[in-house]
Amino acid sequence: MKKGCKYGTHRVIEPVGILPQGAKKISNDMELYSNEILIDVKALNVDSASFTQIKESVGGDVEKIKERILEIVGERGKMQNPVTGSGGMLIGTIEKIGSDLEGKIDLQEGDKIATLVSLSLTPLKIEEITDVKVNIDRVEIKGKAILFESGIYAKLPTDMEETLALAALDVAGAPAQTAKLCKENDSVLILGAAGKSGLMCCYEAMKKVGKNGNVIGLVRSQKDADLLNELGFCHNVIMGDARNPVDVLNKVLEVNNGKEIDISINCVNVTDTEMSTILPVRDDGTVYFFSMATSFTKAALGAEGVGKDVNMIIGNGYTKGHADLTLAELRENQELRKIYEELYV
Amino acid sequence: MKKGCKYGTHRVIEPVGILPQGAKKISNDMELYSNEILIDVKALNVDSASFTQIKESVGGDVEKIKERILEIVGERGKMQNPVTGSGGMLIGTIEKIGSDLEGKIDLQEGDKIATLVSLSLTPLKIEEITDVKVNIDRVEIKGKAILFESGIYAKLPTDMEETLALAALDVAGAPAQTAKLCKENDSVLILGAAGKSGLMCCYEAMKKVGKNGNVIGLVRSQKDADLLNELGFCHNVIMGDARNPVDVLNKVLEVNNGKEIDISINCVNVTDTEMSTILPVRDDGTVYFFSMATSFTKAALGAEGVGKDVNMIIGNGYTKGHADLTLAELRENQELRKIYEELYV
Ligand SMILES: NC(=O)c1ccc[n+]([C@@H]2O[C@H](COP(=O)([O-])OP(=O)(O)OC[C@H]3O[C@@H](n4cnc5c(N)ncnc54)[C@H](OP(=O)(O)O)[C@@H]3O)[C@@H](O)[C@H]2O)c1
Ligand SMILES: NC(=O)c1ccc[n+]([C@@H]2O[C@H](COP(=O)([O-])OP(=O)(O)OC[C@H]3O[C@@H](n4cnc5c(N)ncnc54)[C@H](OP(=O)(O)O)[C@@H]3O)[C@@H](O)[C@H]2O)c1
Repeated sequence: MKKGCKYGTHRVIEPVGILPQGAKKISNDMELYSNEILIDVKALNVDSASFTQIKESVGGDVEKIKERILEIVGERGKMQNPVTGSGGMLIGTIEKIGSDLEGKIDLQEGDKIATLVSLSLTPLKIEEITDVKVNIDRVEIKGKAILFESGIYAKLPTDMEETLALAALDVAGAPAQTAKLCKENDSVLILGAAGKSGLMCCYEAMKKVGKNGNVIGLVRSQKDADLLNELGFCHNVIMGDARNPVDVLNKVLEVNNGKEIDISINCVNVTDTEMSTILPVRDDGTVYFFSMATSFTKAALGAEGVGKDVNMIIGNGYTKGHADLTLAELRENQELRKIYEELYV
Repeated sequence: MKKGCKYGTHRVIEPVGILPQGAKKISNDMELYSNEILIDVKALNVDSASFTQIKESVGGDVEKIKERILEIVGERGKMQNPVTGSGGMLIGTIEKIGSDLEGKIDLQEGDKIATLVSLSLTPLKIEEITDVKVNIDRVEIKGKAILFESGIYAKLPTDMEETLALAALDVAGAPAQTAKLCKENDSVLILGAAGKSGLMCCYEAMKKVGKNGNVIGLVRSQKDADLLNELGFCHNVIMGDARNPVDVLNKVLEVNNGKEIDISINCVNVTDTEMSTILPVRDDGTVYFFSMATSFTKAALGAEGVGKDVNMIIGNGYTKGHADLTLAELRENQELRKIYEELYV
């Protein structure tokens, strides 16, 4: 067996020398390198933006969706939508582990996993598309994929539905980073607190800050406020629009004894919410952007514009142990699990 | 005197309720609020992107540049180019300090300052444009401006030319953050090491990491490599393209005993350099993006794609003491000062 690059550059066909994610075309030859893992793929969970684009471009016709997906993977060697640039994740069974990795990782042949690196960089070969579940962006296939040495994955648990585990794993970075950032007695603002990632962040923040801390959840509907209050996932719930920084600031000060907060965590899915995330935070506090709608320049220039010396972090989808922590939350709290089952399964 | 909002929202005319930077129009009425500062303005240093846009839109005619600037400030109450959205900074003398701030800040009437918050949020009234220095984007005026309570500024030093101080203050965030991040014995990669901000970062990193640390400067020309080597501002200089992450990684490993580095600092002025900044950094290391060409999603998804558990920071243009630290560098090191004088004065 030949040994490949940890990051998969050995499979990049065009343009040569760059990483697989940025490449136009990668090799989906299923002959294994010694530091790769071969996966027998069962289903693709296509990124929502990508799936919507494909669906709309073919007028919702399932057979044409199948054709388009086969075409993309045929051309590029990976399921990366050329319009949106995005991928998704896959579920499958470990078929073979390269000789350099065998025994050195916590995987064995036959294990069922979800890949946590994007399909936009994963070599994929589709033999047949067996089904398309249009309402959950899911494509069932017969096929194979390759995981590089640097690729991250999660073993699928046996004590919960696959779709439940996937929904949680999709946002696993957020609660895991929250757990790393929050300390006892901290005051924490979570924007988009009742969303998929927001809920998990609230739950985790409550555990970390303890009863003398202050977890403040921002939502924009009474329904979501009621939900969070019932669950007891926040010390204080405030209602407002995350695009209105001054209003958010005032409401935060109101429920935090007039004091600026230690940490803010942005889990909102719309643009122009940078300043609401920055403004309520004290000097030397931490601003964590999980939202992919964050603008780098708006955050950098905005903080300078209001003279805020805050530590602004780009939400990394990955941190060690993020999958385990997230699945543990669902096991630990039956109410959280129930809501996730209702909304995302 | 009435008291205004610390962030200047009391002067926003349209749309009401948002911060001055995002506003279409703000009030440049020069009647002072009790927590504002009135500045007698001498010159505007218009942001380079903005100045270029205006210059080109009027075919380089100086009289028309003047007209266009008067028109923008007349309409918006601030010198924010509606096309680029950007501003710049100003130089002037403190004319009056609001009663709520008097004695509480380190300014006195008559002090000469540069504002370090953008012109894109600064109320400005121009009486007359006296000169336009086209080659340095500088507009000399008679006029007044307002600094809000949250506004940051630097007193202009008397021991160096104004243009020298301004050039350094423009990038003050970078060396100050470098000083905060780097510790003794750290290995640090600086991308764009011979640029305006890169040079300052190298100098500051060398001081912090000490002789057992490793400051690695990435440049793309032999001329810049020679410059850094002569100055002794890096332990190791490497040459390469910051858009080629695998090449950068390999070159970094070569000069760091095969080990990944602790910190990387991106001071490059082009797009698509996120992965070169992320890839060489060790797990739990720090990635600092000062470059405004950084894409939030490329950084977030890129780090996940290669399974890197790194702390990624959005370069905040402001941190406490950044102006003093930066001016001190120029006083401390005559060679640095000479280069700055040659290139930027
Ligand atoms: N960094 C990563 O690796 C990573 C991974 C996955 C997702 N993400 C990003 O994280 C973000 C959130 O994802 P998610 O799955 O948690 O989304 P989600 O379930 O749709 O949650 C978003 C929440 O934000 C709320 N919201 C929207 N606009 C608002 C406004 N103007 N003011 C206040 N609240 C508002 C929504 O409330 P309504 O229901 O009232 O609209 C919803 O509760 C997305 O941007 C996503 O791209 C990042
Ligand atoms: N966060 C903030 O508050 C703030 C404030 C000011 C500036 N900035 C940003 O910081 C960045 C740098 O500013 P600056 O004033 O230091 O710019 P600069 O003086 O132009 O320096 C940029 C350096 O990057 C190098 N470079 C460009 N492309 C490269 C490549 N592909 N590979 C390797 N090196 C490359 C350039 O080398 P060549 O000379 O060979 O092209 C130059 O030395 C800009 O993006 C700017 O917007 C941020």
